[in-house]
Amino acid sequence: MNAQPSALSSANRGRHHRVPLPRPFAFHAGGELAAGELAVETWGELSPARDNAVLVFTGLSTSAHAASTASDPSKGWWEYLIGPGLALDTDRLFIITANSLGSCFGSSGPGDIDPRTGEPYGYGWPELRVEDIARAGQLAAEHFGIDVLYGAIGASLGGMTVLAHAALFPGKARRVASLSGTLVPSAFAIATRALQREIVGTALAGGPVDLKLAFRFARKVGMLSYIGAALLENRFAHAPGQQPTGASGTHFEVESWLEHQAEKFASRFNAWSYWYLSRAMDLFDFSKVLPGASAPVLSIERALVVGVHEDQLFPLAQQAAIADLLKAQGIPTRYVDLSSPYGHDAFLVEDALFSPLVADFFAASPRT
Amino acid sequence: MNAQPSALSSANRGRHHRVPLPRPFAFHAGGELAAGELAVETWGELSPARDNAVLVFTGLSTSAHAASTASDPSKGWWEYLIGPGLALDTDRLFIITANSLGSCFGSSGPGDIDPRTGEPYGYGWPELRVEDIARAGQLAAEHFGIDVLYGAIGASLGGMTVLAHAALFPGKARRVASLSGTLVPSAFAIATRALQREIVGTALAGGPVDLKLAFRFARKVGMLSYIGAALLENRFAHAPGQQPTGASGTHFEVESWLEHQAEKFASRFNAWSYWYLSRAMDLFDFSKVLPGASAPVLSIERALVVGVHEDQLFPLAQQAAIADLLKAQGIPTRYVDLSSPYGHDAFLVEDALFSPLVADFFAASPRT
Repeated sequence: MNAQPSALSSANRGRHHRVPLPRPFAFHAGGELAAGELAVETWGELSPARDNAVLVFTGLSTSAHAASTASDPSKGWWEYLIGPGLALDTDRLFIITANSLGSCFGSSGPGDIDPRTGEPYGYGWPELRVEDIARAGQLAAEHFGIDVLYGAIGASLGGMTVLAHAALFPGKARRVASLSGTLVPSAFAIATRALQREIVGTALAGGPVDLKLAFRFARKVGMLSYIGAALLENRFAHAPGQQPTGASGTHFEVESWLEHQAEKFASRFNAWSYWYLSRAMDLFDFSKVLPGASAPVLSIERALVVGVHEDQLFPLAQQAAIADLLKAQGIPTRYVDLSSPYGHDAFLVEDALFSPLVADFFAASPRT
Repeated sequence: MNAQPSALSSANRGRHHRVPLPRPFAFHAGGELAAGELAVETWGELSPARDNAVLVFTGLSTSAHAASTASDPSKGWWEYLIGPGLALDTDRLFIITANSLGSCFGSSGPGDIDPRTGEPYGYGWPELRVEDIARAGQLAAEHFGIDVLYGAIGASLGGMTVLAHAALFPGKARRVASLSGTLVPSAFAIATRALQREIVGTALAGGPVDLKLAFRFARKVGMLSYIGAALLENRFAHAPGQQPTGASGTHFEVESWLEHQAEKFASRFNAWSYWYLSRAMDLFDFSKVLPGASAPVLSIERALVVGVHEDQLFPLAQQAAIADLLKAQGIPTRYVDLSSPYGHDAFLVEDALFSPLVADFFAASPRT
């Protein structure tokens, strides 16, 4: 609101934008949105030739605020990656991040209030697919007059979306980086996400469970799939926490941590958006992005594919499969497997592991 | 009821017993049971010298019915291991399994009806520890007039209980086998079990969630921690199932499987027993089994410790730690790490992996 731009946000020239969607916006699986919009943030300056833009696709739970901006100097979720001299170098590149279509941080989503009823659209919102999120991102790029992106990058859901974008918009992104992504979700990932949706969805449908309670439970299920077990062990082992004993009958420190994470999340995220975005992830299948065709043939200049050994949710074999597919299409592809106790969440925190890879990949002349 | 004994149950001479506990039975952490009992099954015949008995400790969810008996010819949960000529050879050994104290298959537990109120004891039941389950097992052995057990074996919770038994009753078991067990639970195991207890416990405490629904949710969380992700992938991948779309918004085959497992479990298991047994697992710490002492020094002749590489809930490092502790005490210990897509549940199904190890360990003259 009245926050003063920090030195950093001034330096990276971060700005917030509201980008209207076409009226109507037609969804991949049918249905349309009469008047939608996207919350978008950008950093750096678009070059006169409009050839230096990198589109960032986000994970399930994050906003467009990937780095600090003039209007919001708080740290972004990829603060370590985006800024002057950083891997996504805002002295050289124009970085664009949209809050995913269907999310709840300024972009249109199923949690929006339907003015006709005064209630959230909920099930009345169109079925969301990863393909829709990819197209919304492309529209954000077009909003800035960009014909061809210098690059696109995403992790987790974003690592899937960036592949959908490459398939749907041939030649529209020159360099594509998919981190901790997959061509198709694993049975385990589907099982854990479907359980989260079942818990939240039962409450959303008016079933016998309180919505806030259900949302907290579901987020805890999710957290246990994101984080590496070794990290929990190193941090908490079996130490008792300071909180009183709750419904679990115990008060271990790891329970406090999980409760804090779940409470924070359930307070700021919309349950409908969670349900819609989670379902979109489970229904994604790269081989079926283009209707009636076999696996899409991509038109990109080079690719970076990164996975994390400790990731239970998007196991390494899935990133290897992405790299194999790209290489089989003759695309110069660098495949890197990292080790991090953060597991699936590594991309959010492991500056020292991810920054050199991303910096090199988007350098004018990559070394590798 | 009127079932005919099968050829197998006759051959293994399986029998059901009701074993009264001392009146009162005092619990490890305080409190007592005025009049408790254990449901016990045995197979084979006790030798005249009473020196051929093997005590089996069970996992969280299983009954005393480890193998078929005359009164219950249905297959037991360790049918492949117990019988004539099998690894626990009922032609030679007398096998004893008690339904864990606190469980709900004939042994006293918190789900029992308090005659004074007509309601389950619930929170009014004494706090249960793994040490109590170990002592109840020892009492079952004593019920048959056994001074020293030829051996004791257990997996999962049983793999912890067997260690507690060895610590609490020095010299009372000659050979001890701990499969997929641990000296102390991991932070991840605590986190996932505490979440299950929070979900069930919220309902048990009258919170805003239906008990049957909560129990199904909790069991699904548990199942996702037991099973190996690779097994789910091989079985289900992302195939759609036949069931209609539910609260998850999808109908993948892996969801049908999980729902079937959870529905079956929630129908036959008692929620109070689940909560009590799960808490006992999280509160276990081998180094504190003997009050005021440092880690117990065991008096056993030989040990077998087995772990499974794919086990996320009781990771291999935990079994290695058991073996290291035993070896440091000068106990001849065989440590084996197996690989199985069944993960933590491997001991229930992997006949070909476990049978040779257990057979050799309990042979008159083990080869290894």
